[in-house]
This record gives sequence, structure tokens and C-alpha cells, in this order.
Amino acid sequence: MKIAILGGDGFCGWPATLHLSDAGHEVHVVDNLSRRWIDTELGVQSLTPMDSIQERCRIWREVTGRTIHFHLLDLAKEYDRLKAWLAEHRPDAIVHLAEQRAAPYSMKSDRHKVYTVTNNTCATHNLLAAMVETGIDAHLVHLGTMGVYGYSSVRAPIPEGYLNIRIDTPDGERAQEILYPTRPGSVYHMTKSLDQILFQFYAQNDGLRITDLHQGIVWGTHTSQTALHPQLVNRFDYDGDYGTVLNRFLIQAAIGYPLTVHGTGGQTRAFIHIRDSVRCIELALSDAPAAGDRVKIFNQMTETHRVRDLAEMVARLTGATIATLPNPRKEAPENDLVVKNDQFLALGLNPTVLAEGLLEEVVDVARKFAHRIDRSRVPAVSAWTRDLGATVEHDPEGRSLKSVS
Amino acid sequence: MKIAILGGDGFCGWPATLHLSDAGHEVHVVDNLSRRWIDTELGVQSLTPMDSIQERCRIWREVTGRTIHFHLLDLAKEYDRLKAWLAEHRPDAIVHLAEQRAAPYSMKSDRHKVYTVTNNTCATHNLLAAMVETGIDAHLVHLGTMGVYGYSSVRAPIPEGYLNIRIDTPDGERAQEILYPTRPGSVYHMTKSLDQILFQFYAQNDGLRITDLHQGIVWGTHTSQTALHPQLVNRFDYDGDYGTVLNRFLIQAAIGYPLTVHGTGGQTRAFIHIRDSVRCIELALSDAPAAGDRVKIFNQMTETHRVRDLAEMVARLTGATIATLPNPRKEAPENDLVVKNDQFLALGLNPTVLAEGLLEEVVDVARKFAHRIDRSRVPAVSAWTRDLGATVEHDPEGRSLKSVS
Repeated sequence: MKIAILGGDGFCGWPATLHLSDAGHEVHVVDNLSRRWIDTELGVQSLTPMDSIQERCRIWREVTGRTIHFHLLDLAKEYDRLKAWLAEHRPDAIVHLAEQRAAPYSMKSDRHKVYTVTNNTCATHNLLAAMVETGIDAHLVHLGTMGVYGYSSVRAPIPEGYLNIRIDTPDGERAQEILYPTRPGSVYHMTKSLDQILFQFYAQNDGLRITDLHQGIVWGTHTSQTALHPQLVNRFDYDGDYGTVLNRFLIQAAIGYPLTVHGTGGQTRAFIHIRDSVRCIELALSDAPAAGDRVKIFNQMTETHRVRDLAEMVARLTGATIATLPNPRKEAPENDLVVKNDQFLALGLNPTVLAEGLLEEVVDVARKFAHRIDRSRVPAVSAWTRDLGATVEHDPEGRSLKSVS
Repeated sequence: MKIAILGGDGFCGWPATLHLSDAGHEVHVVDNLSRRWIDTELGVQSLTPMDSIQERCRIWREVTGRTIHFHLLDLAKEYDRLKAWLAEHRPDAIVHLAEQRAAPYSMKSDRHKVYTVTNNTCATHNLLAAMVETGIDAHLVHLGTMGVYGYSSVRAPIPEGYLNIRIDTPDGERAQEILYPTRPGSVYHMTKSLDQILFQFYAQNDGLRITDLHQGIVWGTHTSQTALHPQLVNRFDYDGDYGTVLNRFLIQAAIGYPLTVHGTGGQTRAFIHIRDSVRCIELALSDAPAAGDRVKIFNQMTETHRVRDLAEMVARLTGATIATLPNPRKEAPENDLVVKNDQFLALGLNPTVLAEGLLEEVVDVARKFAHRIDRSRVPAVSAWTRDLGATVEHDPEGRSLKSVS
């Protein structure tokens, strides 16, 4: 297949690119490299030293003989170039990971809120409009988030995107299937809820074939392809904005920093290892809906954990201490979460579960590059509201956080 | 109250502006005048000769002694100016009508789709982000559409924004209230569905006080204030993009053009007279939610009618003929529609229902300005898909429509 990977330079995008190239597909990375600019803006860097996308592609070719094509293009701002690109290249499938992906970044300031909505919504809608206009028959696989479901406690397992409900009518009870009611908890998550509406419309009106992956929190860093050469290493974020919770615990443990649990740690979240994330994208590509079908939605996760349980597990494994901090997010302090992922299991996903060996692999990577860590950038300081921001005063090492944000 | 009316130069915005100024409020129109630019783009004009906004405000002052302030500002493109404006003026209430409002225009081409999504979503989100950032405690009243509910036939009356559902859980049945599942039928309607998600988030995260008005199709043109002086006349659209169905029938009758029914005419829609529209906005302003409340949603409509019944009524009244044309929209050919509007009735709305006198008022306006009508711009030619576009070949007067679109 000829596959366009939008956002192929990012944390999930790069390993997905290598995985699909390795599987023999003709892979085109389309990216505006915005994630690298955000590193510059925030003054942080990937824990792992990361080469340019051009250099990464060169190394991949040296190591495997396979070619990855790179195209610099801003989906949100360059509609006409996007349309021309699709008309020229006519990919069989499009993997869309070209959205700003960090909830804390999306809540840093009004500028970040506006950027996240504008970038994510315009990127996704431009893509859909251009697919219709060029008449290409590509299967669109989009990376969404489990966060669209919200994290209020429901005792019922979360189904894969659609919910069967019953409504009273004058003629008696009526059953109906609806998109699971969305309740996003940040501006970032909200943009993925908006995407769902865009997808619903374009599948219905234009028969676009769309798969939406509601992904859990990714952990781990290596895949078998990124491990092939030091310069193929994946980016690995440790900072309070882009670092994901389990990876952050492991990095904190590696550098002797207290594990930062916000609030009670009673938040239950869904997780997936980066190896499974790229495998799921491949499985989703193999199972495209037909034109006229509703959007196919997968829950892309393999297990759920309570944040404080993860912290305790990492503490046991590494001897790290745990610091309980005020929660800068506006969210339920505790929630249950049971998630269905039957569809990927049926397609043959063999879940990578939390195991000491894999956790230690992450700690090893963190130890190797510990000299690249700026400890002052470890705390999560983006607050969901001004009031919550006022409660975040000092990090576990006693630095004032007021000056950091 | 000090009220900002975003989009106060438009078809609903101008009469709302006069109505609220007349009621003694300090009214500020904030508008980018995009609707006038779209007239220029399409090469059509309001049936009624419409002065500049500045001239309209001058006449209003002459006639009533009241001042309407006008501010040229693009909500979608000028975030920083919007924020500065709010911080300086600190309105008590904001009426937001600053969105591209025509479904056919939103479906004309990919450029129009992209414009509609970018303009409407960025305008609304910029406004919400700026309200939070400036810390003003304004009540936001937004003009949405009945179209967010979709027009599939449900036998249950459509409630006001929220639906009570029942779900099976392992612990038994659970009741829940959700936003009514959205099923928009055009890119325009889709943007109003996106707005709902934006409002839900900002009410929940930031305690913004928001009212969303799900308005039916507006008909009529005069209000008691626009009728005060010829230069206060409201804009009145007859073209296939911006003209609304009942007004179009009445205009067609006035100029001896066949009444254009698309498809079976079995589409049932909700309607409201422009006089009630402005009264509803006033009522909504008087009944603000509290900080922390969910978004308050009203169905802003007074009656429902089947399109072909309206055509037959107008034909009876005027002697006009009816032309049945292919439907350029992708929609259910027939649907039922029962809508609750209990909240506005409880607040004292006394509905203006379809009556011969009011219908004749519209026909009279149309006859008066019939010389300003370009008959070739009467047909609705924007097609929802390329396939549907291919079925729209000739207008009822035999012109080829291929060259018009």
C-alpha cells in the first residue's frame, strides 16, 4: 500500500512510519515539524537525542534499504498544497497523527488553547475536504484518544465508540445506537471530540472510509525498528507538558526525582505500549470500512491502571519515593474505568502488558540520557484554571513553580 | 445591560440589535461585515436596499435618540483585538451571531466548507478563550440551529438540548442525561454541533454562563423597529444560498416564479418569525444560567411545517405554481418533527404563527423591490455531493444551472 503518515515525525508517528515501511509499504511522511518547534518554544528537548527527519530517513535507508519519503506541509494552514499533494500522490491509506497531542500544553494559556483548536480542527477538516475534492478513495485512520469518553465513573464497560441506548417515546421504548456521549476534560481532548463530529459527517455525506482510534496513554519508547540504530531512536518526552504519566514515573525514578502523583492518584486511565500502538495502526489499516459505513471506532488500549498504583509499582521496582502534589487538572479525583477492546483482540493483537522487563527498559533509556534532563522542567505546571494554578507552588525539590510556568 | 452583539449587521443580528437598543440596553455591534463581502462574492444583493452599518446606526439615533456603537472586528482572525475589546468594554452579556449561517453556501465548494469551519469554529472558540482570559462575567447567548438534532424521523418530541437515556450496566439499568446526539446535515450545521462541544467544555471547566439557542428557520423580514424608517430595513435574502425556504416561496410568488420544492417536499422543519427570534434572544438574556450550571439550551421555534404544505399554502394564497425539482441536499426525503419549546413559552413568548396577514406582508416587500431581483439567482444550486450536483440541470424557467454554480 501507498500510505501517507501525517505527523510521521512525532512520538507515535515515527515508530508507526518505521513499522509500516518495514512491513513493505510505500511510506510518505507529511509533517510540518511543529513538534520540534514546540520543543524550542518550551526550551525542552527529547530525552533521547533526535536527528532531523531527513537524517532519520537517510539512516533508515542505509540500515534497511527502504525509502521513506518526507514532505514538509502544514495541513492546517496550507489547504491548497494539501489538496495538490493528495491529487498527485493518491495514497491508498492516510494515517492522521498531525494534531497537537498534549493536554497540559493545550491548557497552558489562551494562546495555547487557540493554537490547539485551530491547528487540530483545521488540519482534520482540511484533510476531509481535500479527500472529497480530489476524489481519492483512501482509507483514513485517525489517532484519537480515550479521553473523548471522559473520566466520570461509569460502572458499564466503555464500548468501542458507540453506545446502545433506550429512549421513551409516545409509542413505547425505542432502542438507538449513538456516538458515545463525549465529555472531554481538556482543550486537547475536546479537539478529538470535535473530530468525531467531522468524521461522522464526512462518512455520512461523502462516503469517506474512516477509522478512529481512541488511544490510551502510551508508554515505552522503543519498537523493534527504532532499536535498529541509535539514530533511529524515538523521541522521548519527560517534561510536564508532553511526558506521559507512566514514562514520567520511570524517568523520575531513573534520576532520583520523587514520583509526582497529582491529587489522590485515584485517576484510572487506559494504557498501551508504543509497540502495540504501531501494531494497532497496522491492524486498523488491514480492516478498512466500506464506503457508506459508519466510522469504525477502536479502543486502542490494552490495560487500565490507577495512577497511584503505577507510582507504587515503580517505587517498589526502583526504590523511588512518591510525592503527592496538588492536581493542576480539573478532573474527578477518583474514577473507575473498564474498557472494551474486543475488536483489536479479534484482529490478532497480542497485548504487551506492564512487565518488569519493559519497565526497566524505559528506566535504562532514561539513565543513559539522564545528563540531558533539566530537572526544573519535570513538574507539570499547566493548570486547567487560574484557581488551580494558584495551588501549584513548589515542586518536590523545593523550587518555586511560579517562575517556571 | 451593556450588550455586545457579535454579527449585529446580519439578518438576525440587525433586528436583534434594534430590539435590544429599543429596550434601553447599551448595545455594541461587533462585526467583520463578512456577510456583505459574501454578497459581493456571490454577485447577489439583499432584496431590500441596505445601507452601511454606520449609516444604519446614524438613522437609528436620529429616529430614536439611542446610540448603537459599531466595532469592526474579525472574531476568527483577530484574537488579540477581541481579547482587548472584551477587557476594555466588559459587556454584561454577549449575543453571538457571528457565524456563516447558510447550509447551501457551506456546501458550494471545498473552499466554502473550509471557510465555514474555520470561521465559525475559530470565532466561537476565540470568544470562549477570551472570555476566560479576561475574566469577564458575561452571559453568552449563542444562536445555534435546530439542525444539530438532525432530521431523521423520531417519533419522540425533540427535547431542549438534552436527552434522558437509559443504559444497561452490570449493576442494572442506569439513567443518564446527555446532550442530544447530534446528526448535522451540512457543513454549516456541523459547525453548530462543534459549538455545542466547545460550550459544554467551557461551562464545565471555567464556569462560563452560556445559553445556546437552537433556532428553527426564520421567516419574515420586518420587526417593529426595522419598520420605523426605510433605512432601518432588514436585509432580505432571496437567492438559493441565503434565502430561507418560506421567504423564498413568498418572494417567488411575488415575482411570478414557480415555487421551488426540492425532492418530495416531505421535509418537515421548524419555523420562527423574525419578530419572535429577537424576542427570544431578549428572553434568553433575562434568564441567564449561574456559573457552574450546564449550558442552557432552548429550542427557538414556534411551529413545524412540511415544506410541500408551505408551498401549497403560498400557492393558494397567491395563485403561484409549484415546480418540483431534484433535491441538491443529501437528506431524508420525508421526516416527522415534533419539537418542545416549553422554556420560551414559560418565559412568556407569545408565538407569532403563520397567518395570511404576515405572509402577505412579506409578499408586499418582495413586490416592492421585485425590480432588484436577478431571477437567475433564485434557484438553489449548491449540491451536497458531486453526484447530486449532476442531477440539477435546469431551473424552472429553463435556464441551464451548470453555468450558474
